[in-house]
Amino acid sequence: MPRYRLTIEYDGTTFVGWQRQANGPSIQEAIEDAIVRLSGESATLAGAGRTDAGVHALGQVAHLDLGRELEPETLMRGINFYLRPQPIVVLSAELAAADFHARFSATARRYLYRIVNRPAPPTLDRGRTWHMPARLNARAMHRAAQALIGRHDFTTFRAKACQAESPVKTLDELRVTRHGDEIHIETSARSFLHRQVRNMVGTLKLVGEGKWTQDDVASALAAHDRAAGGPTAPPDGLYLVEVLY
Amino acid sequence: MPRYRLTIEYDGTTFVGWQRQANGPSIQEAIEDAIVRLSGESATLAGAGRTDAGVHALGQVAHLDLGRELEPETLMRGINFYLRPQPIVVLSAELAAADFHARFSATARRYLYRIVNRPAPPTLDRGRTWHMPARLNARAMHRAAQALIGRHDFTTFRAKACQAESPVKTLDELRVTRHGDEIHIETSARSFLHRQVRNMVGTLKLVGEGKWTQDDVASALAAHDRAAGGPTAPPDGLYLVEVLY
Repeated sequence: MPRYRLTIEYDGTTFVGWQRQANGPSIQEAIEDAIVRLSGESATLAGAGRTDAGVHALGQVAHLDLGRELEPETLMRGINFYLRPQPIVVLSAELAAADFHARFSATARRYLYRIVNRPAPPTLDRGRTWHMPARLNARAMHRAAQALIGRHDFTTFRAKACQAESPVKTLDELRVTRHGDEIHIETSARSFLHRQVRNMVGTLKLVGEGKWTQDDVASALAAHDRAAGGPTAPPDGLYLVEVLY
Repeated sequence: MPRYRLTIEYDGTTFVGWQRQANGPSIQEAIEDAIVRLSGESATLAGAGRTDAGVHALGQVAHLDLGRELEPETLMRGINFYLRPQPIVVLSAELAAADFHARFSATARRYLYRIVNRPAPPTLDRGRTWHMPARLNARAMHRAAQALIGRHDFTTFRAKACQAESPVKTLDELRVTRHGDEIHIETSARSFLHRQVRNMVGTLKLVGEGKWTQDDVASALAAHDRAAGGPTAPPDGLYLVEVLY
Protein backbone atom coordinates (compact mmCIF):
# COMPACT_ATOMS: atom_id res chain seq x y z
CA MET A 1 0.00 0.00 0.00
CA PRO A 2 1.93 3.07 -1.21
CA ARG A 3 2.33 6.02 1.14
CA TYR A 4 2.50 9.55 -0.25
CA ARG A 5 3.84 12.75 1.20
CA LEU A 6 2.14 15.95 0.09
CA THR A 7 3.34 19.54 0.53
CA ILE A 8 0.34 21.86 0.66
CA GLU A 9 -0.34 25.59 0.39
CA TYR A 10 -3.61 27.23 1.39
CA ASP A 11 -5.39 30.44 2.23
CA GLY A 12 -7.10 29.46 5.47
CA THR A 13 -9.45 32.47 5.62
CA THR A 14 -12.68 30.66 4.79
CA PHE A 15 -11.94 27.33 6.50
CA VAL A 16 -12.55 26.06 10.04
CA GLY A 17 -8.91 24.94 10.09
CA TRP A 18 -6.84 22.00 8.91
CA GLN A 19 -8.75 19.32 10.77
CA ARG A 20 -12.06 17.82 9.66
CA GLN A 21 -14.86 19.16 11.85
CA ALA A 22 -18.63 19.01 11.87
CA ASN A 23 -19.06 22.79 12.00
CA GLY A 24 -17.72 23.78 8.59
CA PRO A 25 -15.32 23.20 5.70
CA SER A 26 -11.79 22.13 6.60
CA ILE A 27 -8.64 21.85 4.51
CA GLN A 28 -8.36 18.13 5.33
CA GLU A 29 -11.90 17.42 4.17
CA ALA A 30 -11.43 19.39 0.93
CA ILE A 31 -8.31 17.40 0.01
CA GLU A 32 -9.81 14.04 1.08
CA ASP A 33 -12.86 14.79 -1.07
CA ALA A 34 -10.61 15.57 -4.03
CA ILE A 35 -8.78 12.26 -3.53
CA VAL A 36 -12.04 10.32 -3.57
CA ARG A 37 -13.07 12.02 -6.79
CA LEU A 38 -9.68 11.35 -8.32
CA SER A 39 -9.07 7.76 -7.24
CA GLY A 40 -12.41 6.44 -6.04
CA GLU A 41 -10.64 5.61 -2.76
CA SER A 42 -11.35 7.22 0.56
CA ALA A 43 -8.03 8.07 2.18
CA THR A 44 -7.33 9.75 5.50
CA LEU A 45 -4.80 12.57 5.55
CA ALA A 46 -2.49 13.03 8.53
CA GLY A 47 -1.20 16.61 8.67
CA ALA A 48 1.97 17.85 10.35
CA GLY A 49 0.34 20.93 11.83
CA ARG A 50 -3.31 21.22 12.80
CA THR A 51 -3.66 24.87 11.83
CA ASP A 52 -6.61 26.76 13.33
CA ALA A 53 -9.43 28.53 11.51
CA GLY A 54 -8.07 31.41 9.44
CA VAL A 55 -4.43 30.25 9.64
CA HIS A 56 -2.59 29.82 6.33
CA ALA A 57 0.08 27.44 5.07
CA LEU A 58 2.90 27.83 2.61
CA GLY A 59 4.28 24.36 3.27
CA GLN A 60 1.95 22.14 5.29
CA VAL A 61 2.92 18.46 5.00
CA ALA A 62 0.51 15.52 5.10
CA HIS A 63 0.67 11.83 4.29
CA LEU A 64 -1.87 9.35 3.00
CA ASP A 65 -2.04 5.73 1.85
CA LEU A 66 -3.65 4.59 -1.37
CA GLY A 67 -4.61 1.05 -2.34
CA ARG A 68 -3.55 1.54 -5.94
CA GLU A 69 -0.26 3.16 -6.86
CA LEU A 70 -0.45 6.44 -8.77
CA GLU A 71 2.41 8.49 -10.19
CA PRO A 72 3.07 11.24 -7.60
CA GLU A 73 2.82 13.82 -10.39
CA THR A 74 -0.58 12.42 -11.43
CA LEU A 75 -1.74 12.47 -7.82
CA MET A 76 -0.68 16.11 -7.40
CA ARG A 77 -2.27 17.31 -10.62
CA GLY A 78 -5.42 15.30 -10.03
CA ILE A 79 -5.95 16.59 -6.50
CA ASN A 80 -5.35 20.15 -7.68
CA PHE A 81 -7.86 19.69 -10.49
CA TYR A 82 -10.60 18.52 -8.12
CA LEU A 83 -9.73 21.10 -5.47
CA ARG A 84 -10.56 23.99 -7.77
CA PRO A 85 -11.78 26.65 -7.18
CA GLN A 86 -10.87 26.33 -3.51
CA PRO A 87 -7.70 28.20 -2.41
CA ILE A 88 -5.82 24.99 -1.58
CA VAL A 89 -3.12 23.38 -3.72
CA VAL A 90 -0.68 20.49 -3.51
CA LEU A 91 2.73 21.97 -4.31
CA SER A 92 4.47 18.60 -4.55
CA ALA A 93 3.76 14.91 -4.03
CA GLU A 94 6.25 12.10 -3.54
CA LEU A 95 6.32 8.46 -2.50
CA ALA A 96 7.28 8.10 1.16
CA ALA A 97 8.62 5.25 3.29
CA ALA A 98 5.96 3.07 4.91
CA ASP A 99 6.95 4.36 8.35
CA PHE A 100 6.92 8.04 7.40
CA HIS A 101 4.41 9.97 9.50
CA ALA A 102 3.77 13.62 8.63
CA ARG A 103 3.01 14.50 12.23
CA PHE A 104 5.19 12.21 14.32
CA SER A 105 8.28 12.09 12.08
CA ALA A 106 8.60 15.89 11.94
CA THR A 107 11.78 17.28 13.52
CA ALA A 108 10.91 20.96 13.16
CA ARG A 109 8.05 23.24 12.24
CA ARG A 110 8.58 26.81 11.04
CA TYR A 111 5.92 29.51 11.32
CA LEU A 112 5.79 33.12 10.11
CA TYR A 113 3.57 35.80 11.59
CA ARG A 114 3.00 38.98 9.55
CA ILE A 115 1.98 42.30 11.11
CA VAL A 116 1.13 45.31 8.90
CA ASN A 117 2.33 48.20 11.05
CA ARG A 118 1.02 51.48 9.61
CA PRO A 119 -1.99 53.76 10.12
CA ALA A 120 -3.87 52.52 7.03
CA PRO A 121 -5.37 49.02 7.12
CA PRO A 122 -4.11 46.44 4.62
CA THR A 123 -5.90 46.02 1.28
CA LEU A 124 -4.08 43.42 -0.82
CA ASP A 125 -3.06 41.55 2.33
CA ARG A 126 -6.35 41.80 4.17
CA GLY A 127 -7.11 38.53 5.96
CA ARG A 128 -3.47 37.57 5.54
CA THR A 129 -1.90 39.95 8.08
CA TRP A 130 -2.58 41.51 11.49
CA HIS A 131 -3.07 45.25 11.33
CA MET A 132 -1.46 47.32 14.10
CA PRO A 133 -1.89 51.04 13.39
CA ALA A 134 0.50 52.34 16.10
CA ARG A 135 4.23 52.06 15.51
CA LEU A 136 5.75 48.96 17.18
CA ASN A 137 9.37 48.72 18.33
CA ALA A 138 10.51 45.62 16.45
CA ARG A 139 13.99 45.63 18.01
CA ALA A 140 12.55 45.59 21.52
CA MET A 141 10.19 42.79 20.48
CA HIS A 142 13.12 40.77 19.16
CA ARG A 143 15.20 41.27 22.29
CA ALA A 144 12.31 40.35 24.58
CA ALA A 145 11.53 37.30 22.45
CA GLN A 146 14.88 35.80 23.34
CA ALA A 147 13.58 35.20 26.89
CA LEU A 148 11.40 32.44 25.40
CA ILE A 149 14.14 30.54 23.60
CA GLY A 150 15.01 27.11 25.01
CA ARG A 151 13.26 24.37 26.92
CA HIS A 152 10.43 25.69 29.09
CA ASP A 153 7.01 24.96 30.47
CA PHE A 154 4.95 27.07 28.02
CA THR A 155 1.64 26.88 29.94
CA THR A 156 1.43 30.71 29.77
CA PHE A 157 1.17 30.48 25.97
CA ARG A 158 -1.02 27.39 25.76
CA ALA A 159 -4.68 27.39 24.75
CA LYS A 160 -7.10 25.80 27.21
CA ALA A 161 -8.16 23.31 24.55
CA CYS A 162 -4.58 22.12 23.98
CA GLN A 163 -4.35 18.33 23.93
CA ALA A 164 -0.56 17.99 24.25
CA GLU A 165 0.51 15.65 27.05
CA SER A 166 3.09 18.06 28.40
CA PRO A 167 3.39 21.87 28.33
CA VAL A 168 7.19 21.53 28.13
CA LYS A 169 8.56 22.40 24.70
CA THR A 170 11.86 23.56 23.27
CA LEU A 171 11.68 26.79 21.29
CA ASP A 172 14.58 27.00 18.84
CA GLU A 173 14.02 30.34 17.18
CA LEU A 174 11.89 33.47 17.64
CA ARG A 175 13.05 36.34 15.44
CA VAL A 176 11.36 39.69 14.97
CA THR A 177 12.37 41.81 11.98
CA ARG A 178 10.97 44.92 10.32
CA HIS A 179 10.57 45.15 6.55
CA GLY A 180 9.27 48.65 5.82
CA ASP A 181 5.70 48.73 7.11
CA GLU A 182 5.71 45.00 7.89
CA ILE A 183 6.93 43.17 10.95
CA HIS A 184 7.78 39.50 10.55
CA ILE A 185 7.93 37.12 13.47
CA GLU A 186 9.61 33.84 12.53
CA THR A 187 9.71 30.92 14.89
CA SER A 188 10.73 27.29 14.83
CA ALA A 189 10.54 24.32 17.19
CA ARG A 190 10.11 20.57 16.97
CA SER A 191 6.51 21.16 17.95
CA PHE A 192 4.29 23.86 19.40
CA LEU A 193 1.40 23.85 21.86
CA HIS A 194 -2.06 24.82 20.61
CA ARG A 195 -2.09 28.60 19.87
CA GLN A 196 1.46 28.95 21.24
CA VAL A 197 2.67 31.07 18.31
CA ARG A 198 -0.34 33.41 18.39
CA ASN A 199 -0.08 33.76 22.18
CA MET A 200 3.64 34.55 21.96
CA VAL A 201 2.95 37.12 19.20
CA GLY A 202 0.20 38.76 21.27
CA THR A 203 2.62 39.02 24.18
CA LEU A 204 5.43 40.47 22.04
CA LYS A 205 2.96 43.06 20.73
CA LEU A 206 2.78 44.44 24.30
CA VAL A 207 6.55 44.83 24.20
CA GLY A 208 6.38 46.53 20.81
CA GLU A 209 3.90 49.03 22.23
CA GLY A 210 6.23 49.79 25.13
CA LYS A 211 3.80 48.36 27.69
CA TRP A 212 5.94 45.36 28.59
CA THR A 213 9.69 44.78 29.03
CA GLN A 214 11.74 41.64 28.44
CA ASP A 215 11.49 41.01 32.21
CA ASP A 216 7.71 41.06 31.96
CA VAL A 217 7.90 38.40 29.25
CA ALA A 218 10.23 36.27 31.38
CA SER A 219 7.93 36.64 34.40
CA ALA A 220 4.90 35.69 32.34
CA LEU A 221 6.69 32.56 31.13
CA ALA A 222 7.69 31.66 34.70
CA ALA A 223 4.10 32.09 35.93
CA HIS A 224 2.95 28.96 34.03
CA ASP A 225 -0.46 30.59 33.79
CA ARG A 226 -2.26 31.57 30.59
CA ALA A 227 -3.74 34.58 32.41
CA ALA A 228 -0.21 35.95 32.90
CA GLY A 229 0.43 36.11 29.13
CA GLY A 230 -0.62 38.67 26.54
CA PRO A 231 -3.68 38.39 24.29
CA THR A 232 -3.97 35.87 21.46
CA ALA A 233 -3.01 37.39 18.11
CA PRO A 234 -5.61 36.85 15.36
CA PRO A 235 -5.14 33.90 12.99
CA ASP A 236 -4.96 36.09 9.86
CA GLY A 237 -1.23 36.79 10.10
CA LEU A 238 -0.07 33.23 10.78
CA TYR A 239 1.54 30.94 8.19
CA LEU A 240 2.85 27.40 8.59
CA VAL A 241 5.91 27.89 6.41
CA GLU A 242 7.76 24.58 6.47
CA VAL A 243 7.97 21.21 8.18
CA LEU A 244 11.33 19.48 8.43
CA TYR A 245 11.99 15.73 8.77
CA MET B 1 -8.61 76.42 -2.13
CA PRO B 2 -6.18 73.87 -0.65
CA ARG B 3 -4.88 71.10 -2.90
CA TYR B 4 -4.07 67.69 -1.45
CA ARG B 5 -1.88 64.89 -2.69
CA LEU B 6 -2.94 61.36 -1.73
CA THR B 7 -0.92 58.15 -1.99
CA ILE B 8 -3.28 55.22 -2.43
CA GLU B 9 -3.13 51.42 -2.20
CA TYR B 10 -5.82 49.11 -3.54
CA ASP B 11 -6.73 45.60 -4.53
CA GLY B 12 -8.23 46.20 -7.98
CA THR B 13 -9.81 42.75 -8.33
CA THR B 14 -13.44 43.77 -7.91
CA PHE B 15 -13.27 47.20 -9.57
CA VAL B 16 -13.74 48.34 -13.17
CA GLY B 17 -10.47 50.26 -12.82
CA TRP B 18 -9.26 53.56 -11.44
CA GLN B 19 -11.49 55.76 -13.54
CA ARG B 20 -15.14 56.46 -12.82
CA GLN B 21 -17.30 54.55 -15.33
CA ALA B 22 -20.98 53.87 -15.78
CA ASN B 23 -20.54 50.08 -15.91
CA GLY B 24 -19.42 49.37 -12.35
CA PRO B 25 -17.56 50.44 -9.21
CA SER B 26 -14.28 52.30 -9.71
CA ILE B 27 -11.53 53.26 -7.28
CA GLN B 28 -11.99 56.94 -8.12
CA GLU B 29 -15.71 56.83 -7.38
CA ALA B 30 -15.20 54.99 -4.09
CA ILE B 31 -12.74 57.61 -2.84
CA GLU B 32 -14.80 60.55 -4.11
CA ASP B 33 -17.84 59.12 -2.33
CA ALA B 34 -15.83 58.82 0.89
CA ILE B 35 -14.74 62.46 0.55
CA VAL B 36 -18.35 63.61 0.19
CA ARG B 37 -19.33 61.68 3.28
CA LEU B 38 -16.38 63.08 5.21
CA SER B 39 -16.48 66.72 4.15
CA GLY B 40 -19.85 67.29 2.55
CA GLU B 41 -17.97 68.52 -0.52
CA SER B 42 -17.91 66.83 -3.88
CA ALA B 43 -14.32 66.79 -5.10
CA THR B 44 -12.88 65.34 -8.28
CA LEU B 45 -9.79 63.16 -8.01
CA ALA B 46 -7.11 63.26 -10.70
CA GLY B 47 -5.04 60.08 -10.63
CA ALA B 48 -1.49 59.62 -11.92
CA GLY B 49 -2.21 56.26 -13.54
CA ARG B 50 -5.55 55.17 -14.91
CA THR B 51 -5.20 51.53 -13.95
CA ASP B 52 -7.45 49.05 -15.76
CA ALA B 53 -10.00 46.67 -14.23
CA GLY B 54 -8.26 44.14 -11.98
CA VAL B 55 -4.98 46.08 -11.78
CA HIS B 56 -3.67 46.87 -8.29
CA ALA B 57 -1.77 49.78 -6.78
CA LEU B 58 0.76 50.00 -3.99
CA GLY B 59 1.38 53.70 -4.54
CA GLN B 60 -1.14 55.36 -6.84
CA VAL B 61 -1.07 59.16 -6.49
CA ALA B 62 -4.04 61.49 -6.92
CA HIS B 63 -4.80 65.11 -6.14
CA LEU B 64 -7.96 66.94 -5.19
CA ASP B 65 -9.07 70.41 -4.12
CA LEU B 66 -11.26 71.11 -1.12
CA GLY B 67 -13.11 74.34 -0.32
CA ARG B 68 -12.39 74.05 3.38
CA GLU B 69 -8.94 73.20 4.71
CA LEU B 70 -8.60 69.94 6.63
CA GLU B 71 -5.54 68.58 8.41
CA PRO B 72 -3.98 66.08 5.96
CA GLU B 73 -3.97 63.46 8.72
CA THR B 74 -7.69 64.06 9.34
CA LEU B 75 -8.38 63.79 5.62
CA MET B 76 -6.49 60.49 5.38
CA ARG B 77 -8.15 58.91 8.42
CA GLY B 78 -11.57 60.18 7.43
CA ILE B 79 -11.38 58.84 3.88
CA ASN B 80 -10.13 55.49 5.18
CA PHE B 81 -12.99 55.34 7.68
CA TYR B 82 -15.64 55.89 5.00
CA LEU B 83 -13.91 53.60 2.48
CA ARG B 84 -14.34 50.60 4.72
CA PRO B 85 -14.83 47.74 4.04
CA GLN B 86 -13.61 48.28 0.49
CA PRO B 87 -9.99 47.20 -0.22
CA ILE B 88 -8.79 50.75 -0.87
CA VAL B 89 -6.79 52.90 1.55
CA VAL B 90 -5.06 56.26 1.57
CA LEU B 91 -1.51 55.59 2.78
CA SER B 92 -0.61 59.25 3.17
CA ALA B 93 -2.06 62.70 2.52
CA GLU B 94 -0.24 66.00 2.28
CA LEU B 95 -0.88 69.57 1.21
CA ALA B 96 0.39 70.18 -2.33
CA ALA B 97 1.29 73.29 -4.33
CA ALA B 98 -1.58 74.86 -6.27
CA ASP B 99 0.06 73.86 -9.55
CA PHE B 100 0.76 70.24 -8.55
CA HIS B 101 -1.01 67.84 -10.90
CA ALA B 102 -0.91 64.12 -10.05
CA ARG B 103 -1.02 63.14 -13.72
CA PHE B 104 0.82 65.88 -15.57
CA SER B 105 3.51 66.67 -13.00
CA ALA B 106 4.66 63.03 -12.76
CA THR B 107 8.22 62.42 -13.95
CA ALA B 108 8.19 58.63 -13.65
CA ARG B 109 5.82 55.74 -13.04
CA ARG B 110 6.98 52.37 -11.74
CA TYR B 111 5.06 49.14 -12.28
CA LEU B 112 5.61 45.59 -11.03
CA TYR B 113 4.23 42.50 -12.74
CA ARG B 114 4.16 39.23 -10.73
CA ILE B 115 4.09 35.79 -12.35
CA VAL B 116 3.70 32.65 -10.22
CA ASN B 117 5.75 30.12 -12.17
CA ARG B 118 5.06 26.62 -10.83
CA PRO B 119 2.72 23.74 -11.68
CA ALA B 120 0.25 24.47 -8.84
CA PRO B 121 -1.97 27.56 -9.14
CA PRO B 122 -1.61 30.31 -6.54
CA THR B 123 -3.82 30.27 -3.43
CA LEU B 124 -2.89 33.19 -1.17
CA ASP B 125 -1.95 35.29 -4.21
CA ARG B 126 -4.86 34.33 -6.42
CA GLY B 127 -6.13 37.37 -8.33
CA ARG B 128 -2.88 39.11 -7.51
CA THR B 129 -0.53 37.18 -9.82
CA TRP B 130 -0.45 35.55 -13.27
CA HIS B 131 -0.09 31.78 -13.12
CA MET B 132 2.26 30.18 -15.65
CA PRO B 133 2.60 26.43 -14.94
CA ALA B 134 5.50 25.74 -17.33
CA ARG B 135 8.99 26.86 -16.35
CA LEU B 136 9.94 30.24 -17.85
CA ASN B 137 13.52 31.30 -18.57
CA ALA B 138 13.72 34.56 -16.63
CA ARG B 139 17.27 35.33 -17.79
CA ALA B 140 16.26 35.09 -21.44
CA MET B 141 13.23 37.28 -20.71
CA HIS B 142 15.46 39.89 -19.10
CA ARG B 143 17.95 39.92 -21.97
CA ALA B 144 15.19 40.20 -24.57
CA ALA B 145 13.51 42.97 -22.59
CA GLN B 146 16.52 45.20 -23.11
CA ALA B 147 15.52 45.53 -26.79
CA LEU B 148 12.63 47.70 -25.61
CA ILE B 149 14.66 50.16 -23.53
CA GLY B 150 14.90 53.71 -24.87
CA ARG B 151 12.78 56.01 -27.01
CA HIS B 152 10.60 54.12 -29.48
CA ASP B 153 7.28 54.06 -31.25
CA PHE B 154 5.48 51.52 -29.02
CA THR B 155 2.46 50.99 -31.29
CA THR B 156 3.10 47.21 -31.10
CA PHE B 157 2.37 47.33 -27.37
CA ARG B 158 -0.46 49.85 -27.46
CA ALA B 159 -4.14 49.02 -26.87
CA LYS B 160 -6.54 50.05 -29.62
CA ALA B 161 -8.45 52.21 -27.13
CA CYS B 162 -5.31 54.17 -26.17
CA GLN B 163 -5.94 57.91 -26.15
CA ALA B 164 -2.33 59.09 -26.03
CA GLU B 165 -1.50 61.65 -28.72
CA SER B 166 1.70 59.88 -29.73
CA PRO B 167 2.86 56.25 -29.57
CA VAL B 168 6.42 57.41 -28.95
CA LYS B 169 7.54 56.85 -25.36
CA THR B 170 10.85 56.43 -23.55
CA LEU B 171 11.17 53.23 -21.57
CA ASP B 172 13.75 53.65 -18.79
CA GLU B 173 13.74 50.24 -17.15
CA LEU B 174 12.44 46.72 -17.83
CA ARG B 175 13.96 44.16 -15.48
CA VAL B 176 13.02 40.49 -15.15
CA THR B 177 14.15 38.63 -12.04
CA ARG B 178 13.31 35.26 -10.50
CA HIS B 179 12.54 34.90 -6.79
CA GLY B 180 11.96 31.19 -6.17
CA ASP B 181 8.68 30.32 -7.87
CA GLU B 182 7.94 33.96 -8.68
CA ILE B 183 9.07 36.06 -11.61
CA HIS B 184 9.02 39.82 -11.16
CA ILE B 185 8.97 42.22 -14.09
CA GLU B 186 9.74 45.77 -13.00
CA THR B 187 9.45 48.68 -15.36
CA SER B 188 9.61 52.45 -15.24
CA ALA B 189 9.04 55.32 -17.65
CA ARG B 190 7.78 58.88 -17.55
CA SER B 191 4.51 57.51 -18.93
CA PHE B 192 3.13 54.39 -20.59
CA LEU B 193 0.63 53.79 -23.36
CA HIS B 194 -2.64 52.05 -22.49
CA ARG B 195 -1.91 48.36 -21.69
CA GLN B 196 1.76 48.84 -22.65
CA VAL B 197 3.07 47.00 -19.59
CA ARG B 198 0.68 44.05 -19.97
CA ASN B 199 1.44 43.82 -23.69
CA MET B 200 5.20 43.85 -23.04
CA VAL B 201 4.78 41.17 -20.35
CA GLY B 202 2.74 38.97 -22.70
CA THR B 203 5.49 39.30 -25.30
CA LEU B 204 8.26 38.50 -22.83
CA LYS B 205 6.31 35.41 -21.79
CA LEU B 206 6.86 34.07 -25.33
CA VAL B 207 10.59 34.53 -24.79
CA GLY B 208 10.42 32.79 -21.42
CA GLU B 209 8.74 29.81 -23.07
CA GLY B 210 11.51 29.64 -25.69
CA LYS B 211 9.12 30.50 -28.53
CA TRP B 212 10.63 33.93 -29.23
CA THR B 213 14.17 35.34 -29.23
CA GLN B 214 15.38 38.85 -28.46
CA ASP B 215 15.43 39.46 -32.22
CA ASP B 216 11.75 38.57 -32.43
CA VAL B 217 11.03 41.17 -29.75
CA ALA B 218 13.05 43.79 -31.62
CA SER B 219 11.26 42.94 -34.89
CA ALA B 220 7.87 43.16 -33.20
CA LEU B 221 8.76 46.61 -31.83
CA ALA B 222 9.94 47.75 -35.27
CA ALA B 223 6.71 46.55 -36.92
CA HIS B 224 4.69 49.31 -35.18
CA ASP B 225 1.73 46.96 -35.33
CA ARG B 226 -0.17 45.55 -32.34
CA ALA B 227 -0.73 42.30 -34.29
CA ALA B 228 3.06 41.78 -34.34
CA GLY B 229 3.27 41.70 -30.52
CA GLY B 230 2.54 38.94 -28.02
CA PRO B 231 -0.74 38.50 -26.13
CA THR B 232 -1.93 40.87 -23.39
CA ALA B 233 -1.03 39.56 -19.93
CA PRO B 234 -3.98 39.47 -17.51
CA PRO B 235 -4.47 42.43 -15.14
CA ASP B 236 -4.16 40.28 -11.99
CA GLY B 237 -0.36 40.45 -11.78
CA LEU B 238 0.03 44.17 -12.38
CA TYR B 239 0.79 46.74 -9.65
CA LEU B 240 1.30 50.48 -9.95
CA VAL B 241 4.13 50.68 -7.41
CA GLU B 242 5.18 54.30 -7.32
CA VAL B 243 4.83 57.65 -9.04
CA LEU B 244 7.71 60.11 -8.94
CA TYR B 245 7.53 63.92 -9.23
